[in-house]
Amino acid sequence: MSFLDHTHDPEARSWVACANAPESDFPLQNLPYGRFRRAGSNERWRIGVAIGSQILDLAAAAAQGRWQPSQQVWLQALAEGDLNRFMAAPLAQRRALRAALFEALCEGSAQQGALQRCLVAQSQAEMALPCQIGDYTDFYTGIHHATTVGKLFRPDNPLLPNYKWVPIGYHGRASSIVVDGTPVRRPQGQLKGPEHEVPSYAPSRRLDYELELGLYVARGNALGEPIAMEAVSEHLFGLSLLNDWSARDVQGWEYQPLGPFLAKNFASTVSPWIVTMEALEPYRLPFTRPEGDPQPLPYLSSAANTEGGSYDIELEVWLQTAKMRAAGQAAQRLMRSNFRHAYWTLAQMLVHHASGGCNLQPGDLLGTGTQSGPLPEEGGSLLELSAGGKQALSLSSGETRTFLQDGDIVTLRAYAQREGAPRIGFGSCSGEVLPTLQG
Amino acid sequence: MSFLDHTHDPEARSWVACANAPESDFPLQNLPYGRFRRAGSNERWRIGVAIGSQILDLAAAAAQGRWQPSQQVWLQALAEGDLNRFMAAPLAQRRALRAALFEALCEGSAQQGALQRCLVAQSQAEMALPCQIGDYTDFYTGIHHATTVGKLFRPDNPLLPNYKWVPIGYHGRASSIVVDGTPVRRPQGQLKGPEHEVPSYAPSRRLDYELELGLYVARGNALGEPIAMEAVSEHLFGLSLLNDWSARDVQGWEYQPLGPFLAKNFASTVSPWIVTMEALEPYRLPFTRPEGDPQPLPYLSSAANTEGGSYDIELEVWLQTAKMRAAGQAAQRLMRSNFRHAYWTLAQMLVHHASGGCNLQPGDLLGTGTQSGPLPEEGGSLLELSAGGKQALSLSSGETRTFLQDGDIVTLRAYAQREGAPRIGFGSCSGEVLPTLQG
Repeated sequence: MSFLDHTHDPEARSWVACANAPESDFPLQNLPYGRFRRAGSNERWRIGVAIGSQILDLAAAAAQGRWQPSQQVWLQALAEGDLNRFMAAPLAQRRALRAALFEALCEGSAQQGALQRCLVAQSQAEMALPCQIGDYTDFYTGIHHATTVGKLFRPDNPLLPNYKWVPIGYHGRASSIVVDGTPVRRPQGQLKGPEHEVPSYAPSRRLDYELELGLYVARGNALGEPIAMEAVSEHLFGLSLLNDWSARDVQGWEYQPLGPFLAKNFASTVSPWIVTMEALEPYRLPFTRPEGDPQPLPYLSSAANTEGGSYDIELEVWLQTAKMRAAGQAAQRLMRSNFRHAYWTLAQMLVHHASGGCNLQPGDLLGTGTQSGPLPEEGGSLLELSAGGKQALSLSSGETRTFLQDGDIVTLRAYAQREGAPRIGFGSCSGEVLPTLQG
Repeated sequence: MSFLDHTHDPEARSWVACANAPESDFPLQNLPYGRFRRAGSNERWRIGVAIGSQILDLAAAAAQGRWQPSQQVWLQALAEGDLNRFMAAPLAQRRALRAALFEALCEGSAQQGALQRCLVAQSQAEMALPCQIGDYTDFYTGIHHATTVGKLFRPDNPLLPNYKWVPIGYHGRASSIVVDGTPVRRPQGQLKGPEHEVPSYAPSRRLDYELELGLYVARGNALGEPIAMEAVSEHLFGLSLLNDWSARDVQGWEYQPLGPFLAKNFASTVSPWIVTMEALEPYRLPFTRPEGDPQPLPYLSSAANTEGGSYDIELEVWLQTAKMRAAGQAAQRLMRSNFRHAYWTLAQMLVHHASGGCNLQPGDLLGTGTQSGPLPEEGGSLLELSAGGKQALSLSSGETRTFLQDGDIVTLRAYAQREGAPRIGFGSCSGEVLPTLQG
């Protein structure tokens, strides 16, 4: 079922030399899309493709490169900064544009001369959200996260009976999604610990991050018309990192019976580059269920999903405190995990979402939920790593943390990697915690 | 605190004679905004104002009427079909436009000759969603609904301890909001009754409506910056009806721990006309709490809210089955209630939503939650009226209903009314249930 072509050749190299460095997130085989302009300019936002430490400016490339008419149509949309229109394109045309960009950026391409003038250094660029996100939904596919957090909220009943049948998800807030580098203000909210008679409105004391991937929808579906598992490839565009910042104390008091609300909607951070499903094709894994667990219902099953519905993507969380920054100390890695542990696949998330007839639209964002590994040190949030705030983490700076402090910078990272092939990286998804606004 | 001016004069009459009929939803004192074009045409969508059985076409009126320059700016946006831009206008300018439209449509206006040519009959018009709804949030302010439904889901614990402190809300789906008259397809979903070992994916058998009002946001707030209760008038634009269709069987199985998802996101219907807060100004009521209940926290309190935060708005649900239609039988009223019973005010919903820093945007929709009255026959959903599906309702057609059947048309209605004043009506919020799509 997997779809591999010359754009996945691990030996291929780019004439953009920095893309060939083994530590680069953006080799020729990746080619993720993002929206950018020159930092500090009033230029129009347009779509670019990351290549090494550079961006191929698709507005410039559309004007100066040589492209087939069928590709020029899509390059024109991307030149106008409209990724959503391209997301709605048929899969075959998305693949064809990837192939054209790959060939144009490949060593020996006749386009090198023209396209060399279309590069902008990432260090000189300002990134925006990659597309217009109409609706944002967050799933809960990390079974180790669900179990650990479930224990904290419901010690007797950590994993609810529906978890192994339903890809649990809920609607999130689209307006407060921000891009990598945007500071995040500590929210105020109603807090009420068991020791308090009544709640108070105060700055959250249990501010946390959540390590997630975000799935961007490609083509949508009409209202009332579900998507079949067999057709899902047409609807999956690509992935980015997603930090679903969470105020645990607000969450604990507000979340029943209708789910998290203000605990989550003050900010969610995405990385600026969307890594396409095509770039991740070599990293598909069989989807399996632990022995004794139920098989998914037929509407959530397909041969392609069983054969290659899961993905081997390494995930990391890094923390740099204000003290570390002042001391010139680099960020510290807090944990590692892998997306292969997700209990539900991307295809199942998307198909379940549309299974009641809900219309998905190009650019909609579906979070995977926190991706914790099976071991305690692989928790994808501080809530897990600190055992609900009971065990402080010791940092290399001599500080400790249960939850985030003002001035902390949280950075998520992800990459797909294997022996003898360049790594498909996601770039950075980062944000600094600012103190609550007073007044 | 109330703001009454000549646009609230109950004696004022329009030269559009049908607007003066006592049973009209849209007298001169109402002037709600909607987006329309001539039915069956390819005309551009533009904003109109309902007056009697007519629509004042603001694209035509902007061109043919006489307006002050400060009003012409907003009329231009409305002529282009962009209500969101006007929603973001300062309150004083929204009030000024209302006054200008009132004067232009008032008996004796010198503009009658010009504007008579700018009327389109509502029966000749096709309505769209009135604005772009970026995010949709649903609250849960109906305490009688929350108590009755809570008993069905949690017999021992109907009203959770946070209910009287937190205006409970959750994020809904914006893409599947449809306008009055759009058919609604019965969703499929995972169903699992207590009698079943495992769930199945099948058409919902417990399809229901929910009687709500929808609040449209006027000016927004910046991310990280809460809105003070004292400033709330700048942020409240107006109200429409909202039917938050619900699949109760899907909801029962999926909703823990993160809240309703597919049970709600297959469709939500709004009425096409937004009745402005200004039109409803004479119907404000003091906000009170039952003796012994806690007072709202300071961030949810203000003198204006205490004095006039609640609204006296009558609410109704009507049902017409396919059999009634075939027999030429009119719809039957199932219940009546009043928005005055809401436990939280519109101001509190909006301020709470932004209290953690979440950014609201012009055109965002905030549902009030189901507005049931205190009596059993005042339930705002079939779940309540049928006691959880246990007691079927007898209809005038000789049929019975626990939940909705295919071919049923549900219509919500609302109006504010008092002796000696024309009624401020909301028009219709209606949808027919279609059978599940097979295949």
